[in-house]
Amino acid sequence: MDLLFLGTSAGAPTKARNVSATALLEATGKRWYLIDCGEGTQHRLLHTSLSTHDLGGIFITHVHGDHCLGLPGLLASASMNGRRQPLDVVLPRALHDWVRVSLAVTDSHLSFDLRLLPVEEFSGWHNAAVTVSTVTLSHRVPSVGYLFEERCPESRLDSRRLDAEGVPRGPLWGALAKGLAVNHQGRELQAAHYLQPGRAARRIMICGDNDTPELLAEAAADADVLVHEATFTQPAVERSGVTYGHSTAAAVARFAEAAGVRNLVLTHFSARYQADNRRSPSIDDIRQEAALHYAGNLTLAADLQRYHLGREGVLLPVD
Amino acid sequence: MDLLFLGTSAGAPTKARNVSATALLEATGKRWYLIDCGEGTQHRLLHTSLSTHDLGGIFITHVHGDHCLGLPGLLASASMNGRRQPLDVVLPRALHDWVRVSLAVTDSHLSFDLRLLPVEEFSGWHNAAVTVSTVTLSHRVPSVGYLFEERCPESRLDSRRLDAEGVPRGPLWGALAKGLAVNHQGRELQAAHYLQPGRAARRIMICGDNDTPELLAEAAADADVLVHEATFTQPAVERSGVTYGHSTAAAVARFAEAAGVRNLVLTHFSARYQADNRRSPSIDDIRQEAALHYAGNLTLAADLQRYHLGREGVLLPVD
Repeated sequence: MDLLFLGTSAGAPTKARNVSATALLEATGKRWYLIDCGEGTQHRLLHTSLSTHDLGGIFITHVHGDHCLGLPGLLASASMNGRRQPLDVVLPRALHDWVRVSLAVTDSHLSFDLRLLPVEEFSGWHNAAVTVSTVTLSHRVPSVGYLFEERCPESRLDSRRLDAEGVPRGPLWGALAKGLAVNHQGRELQAAHYLQPGRAARRIMICGDNDTPELLAEAAADADVLVHEATFTQPAVERSGVTYGHSTAAAVARFAEAAGVRNLVLTHFSARYQADNRRSPSIDDIRQEAALHYAGNLTLAADLQRYHLGREGVLLPVD
Repeated sequence: MDLLFLGTSAGAPTKARNVSATALLEATGKRWYLIDCGEGTQHRLLHTSLSTHDLGGIFITHVHGDHCLGLPGLLASASMNGRRQPLDVVLPRALHDWVRVSLAVTDSHLSFDLRLLPVEEFSGWHNAAVTVSTVTLSHRVPSVGYLFEERCPESRLDSRRLDAEGVPRGPLWGALAKGLAVNHQGRELQAAHYLQPGRAARRIMICGDNDTPELLAEAAADADVLVHEATFTQPAVERSGVTYGHSTAAAVARFAEAAGVRNLVLTHFSARYQADNRRSPSIDDIRQEAALHYAGNLTLAADLQRYHLGREGVLLPVD
């Protein structure tokens, strides 16, 4: 699975960073998922190879504008581009009416079926390739993290079982390998019973705004990658005396170290942290603070940068 | 007065052009006005010297999303940047609740007083520097054009009148020149009575989507600049058989020629018209079609390009 960051700034956009949106791409094929959709997400997509035709679902972490104001425009543009496939959007119930009203008042008529699912009653979502579950976080408003887990990655036929059941090699095996149900001697065989994962399933946890990383203790222990906000540095919070419900780089790094997180990706940086490290504060302050407390594979997300989680379980930037 | 285009694409953004938004800048000082506010307008502003602190008012031409979806984010960011001055937004009544709901559901609390004014009951708007009036246009939904007219530009004291009324030169004249009321021998003198324009007032007409340029006959005759959409070329409309309520470059150009428009600015181009004129269709098709029918000063608006209307009444690009 790959990650492609479409926005890594907190609250408001900067020249270099847009507000929150993260694309998660399946290991094979073109399908991808969008986690949060700040204003201008559709603009960022124009600079990637991602198409809204291949969008498998949208998952919004919380109601703040920098995480959702891009939804109406992205949906309208997907429609103008001719999407026909239904689209599931998991999002706080408070945003359901807003999405519908936004489309209605702007006279936007979607070319596809839009299914709005309340995150408050979320009991998991899946398709053939991924399973998605949530973890409740702590912020000024209700916020969640989404855990994406591959289903049966690089699946292979269980030839021992097929042989044992007397299913002859040939077209039947081929159909089962493609995930299709087949009929053998009057019995319907479900592909899922005869497919085995070719490797361990990857798990990527992508979090909304959160001031208590410890809430992720259970989920993070199993995840290959933890994507978490680091809006401020510790000195900044000590000076201001307020966190606005956000985490510092130090707090997230300490948690990730204790939880044994192998790949930690920080994002959602306050606009005060500049790209130019000759000025202060700079984004390097975030990196240095996190590196003090975390010895694993640390990444500071950058807009439009794609990262690949390889077979060895290490997340690395790709061109 | 200057124009700075923040978005010149129709319907959806492209890599080079954002959706509709136009800034009109006062001849002196920093105050500016925003006409339409498509998604990503606040992002475009980051690449200009314009600040939402100096924004004198927002004027929305119609309800379509590519003309208004950037409003909630722009207002929220203006607030985060600490704006305190009240802000007037003239927009269709259908959008009033939507703006308020968008701010409420995203938990955005503005630091300034937001005054939403219905364009349907618009009877003109003015401050010390400009007067704004509307012209009703024709589109799939109700749409207007906004005519901006300078008030008493480069104003000078009417010394003959002051002398005749026996007002002594000195501090009283100075205060009147600054637009202040003064008291002279028990009589309150209003500055407006003693100020004269130093030059003719400029008039700039900025239109929403419109399929009938002739509706502008009266307004355009007086305007120094007409900014109008040219979404398609004539051959494109002839091929498709539909205009979607838009104008062709040819129709606008013919109208502008007949109405004696001195400066015509075309904008709101369909994404099919590419920047690269070795490919077809290209944006040059729009230019060539318009130039066939219009002999005045023709401009095809480009994103982030600023244009200055000089003393000679000619609109020219500035760096």
